[in-house]
Amino acid sequence: MQASIRIAAGPALQYLLRIGDSALVLAQRLAEWTGHAPVLEEDIALANMALDLLGQSRAILSHAGTLEGAGHDEDQLAFLREERDYRNVTLVELPRGDFAFTVVRNTMMATFFRLLWERLAASADTELAGIAGKAVKEARYHQQHAADWLARLGGGTVESRRRTEKALAELWPYHAELFASDEIDEHAASSGLGPRWSELREPWSAEMAQILGEAGLAPPATVPFLSTGKRGVHSEHMGFILAEMQQLQRAYPGGVW
Amino acid sequence: MQASIRIAAGPALQYLLRIGDSALVLAQRLAEWTGHAPVLEEDIALANMALDLLGQSRAILSHAGTLEGAGHDEDQLAFLREERDYRNVTLVELPRGDFAFTVVRNTMMATFFRLLWERLAASADTELAGIAGKAVKEARYHQQHAADWLARLGGGTVESRRRTEKALAELWPYHAELFASDEIDEHAASSGLGPRWSELREPWSAEMAQILGEAGLAPPATVPFLSTGKRGVHSEHMGFILAEMQQLQRAYPGGVW
Repeated sequence: MQASIRIAAGPALQYLLRIGDSALVLAQRLAEWTGHAPVLEEDIALANMALDLLGQSRAILSHAGTLEGAGHDEDQLAFLREERDYRNVTLVELPRGDFAFTVVRNTMMATFFRLLWERLAASADTELAGIAGKAVKEARYHQQHAADWLARLGGGTVESRRRTEKALAELWPYHAELFASDEIDEHAASSGLGPRWSELREPWSAEMAQILGEAGLAPPATVPFLSTGKRGVHSEHMGFILAEMQQLQRAYPGGVW
Repeated sequence: MQASIRIAAGPALQYLLRIGDSALVLAQRLAEWTGHAPVLEEDIALANMALDLLGQSRAILSHAGTLEGAGHDEDQLAFLREERDYRNVTLVELPRGDFAFTVVRNTMMATFFRLLWERLAASADTELAGIAGKAVKEARYHQQHAADWLARLGGGTVESRRRTEKALAELWPYHAELFASDEIDEHAASSGLGPRWSELREPWSAEMAQILGEAGLAPPATVPFLSTGKRGVHSEHMGFILAEMQQLQRAYPGGVW
């Protein structure tokens, strides 16, 4: 068995891991739909989005490995850390749920990512700016696609509306984590690496209110809950994700099984 | 629960289902790698190939639905048939196995698909010819990618070679089904729809011998075994695939769960 790698997690690196890990884990949750989406067209759309997210994750983790300077490549970063060193937001870890759950989560995350990539396209880190410039186009499509589905589900049948409202109630509390800024964000803002995520709260809330409104839905009331995945403290689902993801790499270090 | 659809399976329709179903089921086996491939780059490559296969399947099943003329669309054909009405070759049903298994299967299937699409691009059915013209480019890339990996594994470590030989020994017997022609093929050949699959045996065997040779491997001896998926008689794995695929469609007919 291969031992875990430990990372020298300076603030810039942690900032990048929050992005790369969130894209990586969401990609897996979307890929779980392959062969199981309601229509083949949506199978293909979800697989496409998973692919975009994997590409974004790879670019970010590769760049993070360079910044870390400890010789860790994107694969070691993707597959060999311990759970506490994964910095994805908790929202993306939650099991895939039904289709309404996936549509609501995708709407929330794509809106967030689009706003984040837009800001990162102006990063003082030109490598990151380049990654963001490409990713923002993909996120824009993901957001539009998810919002279109949300409108169909919200304005569909009694059952589709009931499920969408249920998904929204379950997922909404996890959005607070997206905008809970901390010292990592302060460092990114002062170094010009990227925005404090708290700065995205207002435009995100405005866009979500509009998208939800077009679906005949309203943002749920805020509850006092703050998930903590981006600080490395994950839900009970994260261990299962990692167990599957890491099986190959740990059993055959550097191998391909 | 939604009842199954039964199909009016004339020979042209069955010929198309063999193609579309084989692409559909292989796509699912490849998508199972997302988040679990040895390196992120390969995660992305396998997801890309799954996406290509899903697109090919969708095009073929949509065309099959039109030909059938019973009002079944590609989604009903993809998700609502009974096991006996799926006509994919057995080779694609086998569980994903380890990475060597996937590489060997992809090499076998991509070589087959590339040869088949090349012939179908000259189909008297112009719609099918158009689908094939696009698909052949994708299959060419799939074949090259799989053959490159096969060379790396075959010429790699003792362990990679051992696993590749084991995978080849397990998978090879299933190739006979690809070329077992029957009345469906005769009809396709005489109507100009497409080639007898038996006509592809010789070029496939020649290309496989070359690819295997470059990997330092040799085709295993032929054994008297003929799988029967394309006649609707599947392995024990097919039921599990369908149970998962069909869960949504059957529980919520016409819905999206």
